[in-house]
Amino acid sequence: MKKEEISIVNILETEAWKLLEQSIAYYQGQPLGTMAVCDKTQIVLNFDHCFVRDFVPSALLFLVKGRYDIVRNFLEKTLKLQPKKNQFNAYTPSKGLIPASFRILLTDGEESLEADFGEKAIARVTPVDSCLWWIIILHAYVKATKDIKFAMQPQFQQGIILIMELCLATRFDMNPTLLVPDGACMIYRRMGIYGYPLEIQSLFYAALRAARKLLICAGNEEIVTAIDNRLPLLRDHIRHYYWIDMKRLNVIYRFKSEEYGQKAVNPFNIYADSIPYNDLSVWLPKHGGYLAGNIGPSQLDIRFFSLGNLLSIICSLTNEVQSQAIMNLIEEQWDDLVGQMPMKICFPALENEEYKIFTGCDPKNIPWSYHNGGSWPVLLWFLTAAAQKTGRTNIGERAIEIAQARLSQDEWPEYYDGTSGSLIGKQARRYQTWTITGFLLAKELMQNPEYLELISFGEFDIEKDYRFCDL
Amino acid sequence: MKKEEISIVNILETEAWKLLEQSIAYYQGQPLGTMAVCDKTQIVLNFDHCFVRDFVPSALLFLVKGRYDIVRNFLEKTLKLQPKKNQFNAYTPSKGLIPASFRILLTDGEESLEADFGEKAIARVTPVDSCLWWIIILHAYVKATKDIKFAMQPQFQQGIILIMELCLATRFDMNPTLLVPDGACMIYRRMGIYGYPLEIQSLFYAALRAARKLLICAGNEEIVTAIDNRLPLLRDHIRHYYWIDMKRLNVIYRFKSEEYGQKAVNPFNIYADSIPYNDLSVWLPKHGGYLAGNIGPSQLDIRFFSLGNLLSIICSLTNEVQSQAIMNLIEEQWDDLVGQMPMKICFPALENEEYKIFTGCDPKNIPWSYHNGGSWPVLLWFLTAAAQKTGRTNIGERAIEIAQARLSQDEWPEYYDGTSGSLIGKQARRYQTWTITGFLLAKELMQNPEYLELISFGEFDIEKDYRFCDL
Repeated sequence: MKKEEISIVNILETEAWKLLEQSIAYYQGQPLGTMAVCDKTQIVLNFDHCFVRDFVPSALLFLVKGRYDIVRNFLEKTLKLQPKKNQFNAYTPSKGLIPASFRILLTDGEESLEADFGEKAIARVTPVDSCLWWIIILHAYVKATKDIKFAMQPQFQQGIILIMELCLATRFDMNPTLLVPDGACMIYRRMGIYGYPLEIQSLFYAALRAARKLLICAGNEEIVTAIDNRLPLLRDHIRHYYWIDMKRLNVIYRFKSEEYGQKAVNPFNIYADSIPYNDLSVWLPKHGGYLAGNIGPSQLDIRFFSLGNLLSIICSLTNEVQSQAIMNLIEEQWDDLVGQMPMKICFPALENEEYKIFTGCDPKNIPWSYHNGGSWPVLLWFLTAAAQKTGRTNIGERAIEIAQARLSQDEWPEYYDGTSGSLIGKQARRYQTWTITGFLLAKELMQNPEYLELISFGEFDIEKDYRFCDL
Repeated sequence: MKKEEISIVNILETEAWKLLEQSIAYYQGQPLGTMAVCDKTQIVLNFDHCFVRDFVPSALLFLVKGRYDIVRNFLEKTLKLQPKKNQFNAYTPSKGLIPASFRILLTDGEESLEADFGEKAIARVTPVDSCLWWIIILHAYVKATKDIKFAMQPQFQQGIILIMELCLATRFDMNPTLLVPDGACMIYRRMGIYGYPLEIQSLFYAALRAARKLLICAGNEEIVTAIDNRLPLLRDHIRHYYWIDMKRLNVIYRFKSEEYGQKAVNPFNIYADSIPYNDLSVWLPKHGGYLAGNIGPSQLDIRFFSLGNLLSIICSLTNEVQSQAIMNLIEEQWDDLVGQMPMKICFPALENEEYKIFTGCDPKNIPWSYHNGGSWPVLLWFLTAAAQKTGRTNIGERAIEIAQARLSQDEWPEYYDGTSGSLIGKQARRYQTWTITGFLLAKELMQNPEYLELISFGEFDIEKDYRFCDL
């Protein structure tokens, strides 16, 4: 880079850090989290909420900068919002859930926290991802501070165990994956991601890995046994059934249907006609592949979902060859997946009848907008982390360059629209906190690869990975 | 009826009873259940399986005829197939589940039972309905025999409690309804009935009612408290959010969207554009209405599903006015819902893109065939029971007349196809047991309205319905 460019980049980063500072919410005099939008002059829906999922890149940034107090306070206060008992009332949050968001209320000069578990959300979507992210943040906090005693406090161990019990509870079906309603994660509007969507499964895997470490250190062996049983099953299920590359597509294309019995080659009874196999066979590069969006009865969602795929690389849910293949795909289909703004939340968009049927005619999720094929700058940090993990740092660098040429002058929008991501999102808010933190975290991860350790896991091997506290 | 007609009907019934006799499976010398197909010369897939859901009308018939041994044996043996412990293995059946089906294996002269919990089924669908039906059959058995001691045996109480724990377990979301994967009930192929389908919710309600009575008699109060909390919430949720009539359609049509907060009028954020409101406004009679197929985030499935609607009447999940409105609708839209064979499993069929997207291009569920708008004679008994319950016996009589004119000469097919149900199902098996038992049970219910008591429940009123054993 030329000197002039370096100074522009420095100005940009300084601006971003300043905005992040403005987004910090204070509760009873202590910093508690970051609000969804940095610019307090924008009075828009939910602008004053602190969303758990939005806080993730903020938390990681605060940790690498040694500002542990904010993250500790966030973890302590959100833990207090977790219901500890079942209330035998189907409209109150279940034991173990962590809210999607909270906000600070001021009543007669008294501050209090108001949680939202989905009961106030548009369409009453369930924030299944929150409790999984909460464990991942807690694990990162312990890694950064080396303060395992913090997580060993009884109330934290109880919090982790309640989440694990919720996720590992006896269920109707017999897959190692988690069954959730539509829109239970970052994509929190109806998008045909009911059932067993990849994002939830990869978060579940990462949370299991994190919880295992945190529980072992405190000697909570019983629930660790349950985790140790689930981890390899979940991993192998995803690596096998969700994986799509040319070799696998050839198998799917020739699937026989209506197979009965345990030896079925096509156990989910996928009809090849339901797969756009010709488009896929052209799109898939020779050495590329990815994890499908969803698997269910006669259902194989072949959309590429970025968060799920990138997080799978980061937490070693995919194997080494698969991780490289995903990065190959991103590189070779760069225009579709990255384009003018890293990166597409999913590809391709649902169009025409599919759009109408799967979104329920959602005017916000029109094709190539918002959750339906929009581009989300926050995903930049996931891409950079996956690039670091796979040693493909050039991919991270290229993506950061694209982002930093636009984000500041576009006033840090929430999302971009269009097939190439060149339009600022139709209803995008400006100065969206996680757009800013996603960019800053991506920069940090490129400059300091060791920060990846906060969020990354190696291959899980139950033989070698015996039970000792390594935090 | 003329004498000649009466004698034809008698011959028909005699034939049906004889076929039912042939379908009985014997295990270790005792009658255990009925096989899916009566005609043992047909070696077709699953012909030798005893399906729990298929056995329901057989069980009720055996009970009214005083042949208690078969039902008792069925309940005892299936209870033994219920897993009593969690096996920490996501591919083995969960604690509490009852298999979809079982068959009798003969190995070296030794008979044994092999259960199928969905792990061998086509598309690996989960039989969520089996455990709910099991409780309903047990309750009917106790009502018929007055042998409450049978259900008070510790292993039966444990069986009921395990099912209740499975259904009432802590879950992610905050609705009183049960979240299930696609195809978890009678419609066991992908049909866009993921989430909170009506059939499961009405079975859940009936099973909660039955379990409550069975548990109170044995003094198991703790789980009864959980049931008492859930019942009114589930009932009110279904009666309000699932209900569609002209008045409600007018509200839905003018829904505002994107409402945030607990006071939202449109909490599920339904977009009116996703509803074929014009078709519906023409189709809905002035005094008719029904329960929608499903409710989820931005999703209102307006298809009419017969089993769920009729069972809701039978178990008083709908209120009296709603029950009458459903019967009005059936009467006024007779050609669509009954036509040439009682009755359509759902209406209308998924066609064109909807068919492709929701079924995954299933060649068995093409429009107006099988689960996708086919006509199922087994539903005749549900229709007759609902007709008795609402005092609309003429509807039951009309339906029986249509069925008895065709069933025997068509060799008792599994299902019929076409918009009017005039075609024998494309892949329908002949001499399907529940086609025969559905017909016989409908006849019994018309002749002996008191038999309805075996399967029916009055309005649940927690104030009046205090805890005493009335079985």
